[in-house]
Amino acid sequence: MAKRIITISREFGSGGHSIGLMAAERLGISFYDNQIITEVARQSGLSEEFIRENEEYASHSNSFLYQIAMSAAGSYGYPSVYQKLYEAQTQVIEQLAERESCVIIGRCADYILRDRTDCLHVFIHADYEHRAAHVLEKYGDNGKPMQQRLKDKDSRRRNYYRFHTDRDWGVCANYHLALDSGLLGMDTCVDLILAAARV
Amino acid sequence: MAKRIITISREFGSGGHSIGLMAAERLGISFYDNQIITEVARQSGLSEEFIRENEEYASHSNSFLYQIAMSAAGSYGYPSVYQKLYEAQTQVIEQLAERESCVIIGRCADYILRDRTDCLHVFIHADYEHRAAHVLEKYGDNGKPMQQRLKDKDSRRRNYYRFHTDRDWGVCANYHLALDSGLLGMDTCVDLILAAARV
Repeated sequence: MAKRIITISREFGSGGHSIGLMAAERLGISFYDNQIITEVARQSGLSEEFIRENEEYASHSNSFLYQIAMSAAGSYGYPSVYQKLYEAQTQVIEQLAERESCVIIGRCADYILRDRTDCLHVFIHADYEHRAAHVLEKYGDNGKPMQQRLKDKDSRRRNYYRFHTDRDWGVCANYHLALDSGLLGMDTCVDLILAAARV
Repeated sequence: MAKRIITISREFGSGGHSIGLMAAERLGISFYDNQIITEVARQSGLSEEFIRENEEYASHSNSFLYQIAMSAAGSYGYPSVYQKLYEAQTQVIEQLAERESCVIIGRCADYILRDRTDCLHVFIHADYEHRAAHVLEKYGDNGKPMQQRLKDKDSRRRNYYRFHTDRDWGVCANYHLALDSGLLGMDTCVDLILAAARV
């Protein structure tokens, strides 16, 4: 195919992980979502637990303290632990793209790989009902109101993306293809991604 | 097809008009872009010239005077001429959707028809280079810097959409399918729209 790397950004509960996995399987290429955590841990020396809690879901990426921690890095000549994490993540994603054809989920990969011409950048979203049903099926009920649960996770992703890329998350112009998985269904989403990647 | 009405919102110069026309031809259904102006004129009594200048490109939709004119309507019990235009446009689009399968370009049709389940809402965008080349080829050089020309027209569409729908123009969540016509090419955009409309 012409586009050998597919990045997938997604609203929480839209099925972006599953759609990406199905696309990778149909193309016979690698799939990277949580596997990236292990690799970032190996290369950075940070613990997997820290990475899991602070990678794209960082709840504090919009907070004053986080921004201080990030910007203080330059002033003192050494990177904050958050900056170290983002840099390690960037490096791992760049290495993956250089090394092999693959599907990469989240983690600002669309932005990190924006200058490559062999990538297809995809955004997956869906209406509330479809996302709520998907989250319940996949993660169960954790006691929090569903509306809040979806909003919290997407807000963290939006803030993290905004902080590191200076772009707005979920805006059409940032992606080559954006799909409503609620209306289209997961199989059609995979078909459309594969058709677009052939260009 | 399952979705018998396709609305196409588009960045200026992205080829949305041509893509919509090709999709309508391939599906053997009607195509409405400027044809809507004639129908709005017939139903509202407003002149085609006034409609052409003040429909979705209204340069003043973000201006204080426009907003006063719009909101004054309710206070005085009669609609301003701008409100009359938007209402006539809404009515024409609802009638078209009720009457026949069709492709409708712009004019907040995605919002006006949001509660129908037989519509596919599409957004078309492209990078600066593709849009600049398309505008030059289609409309020629009018002496204004191209960057400004693209920005002006999209700003007017964005403001008009925002004013009438209270939504943000060009945000993935508002559309079932968003396509980068610069990367994908017009023919592939048509293929993807047809595949999505089949669902």
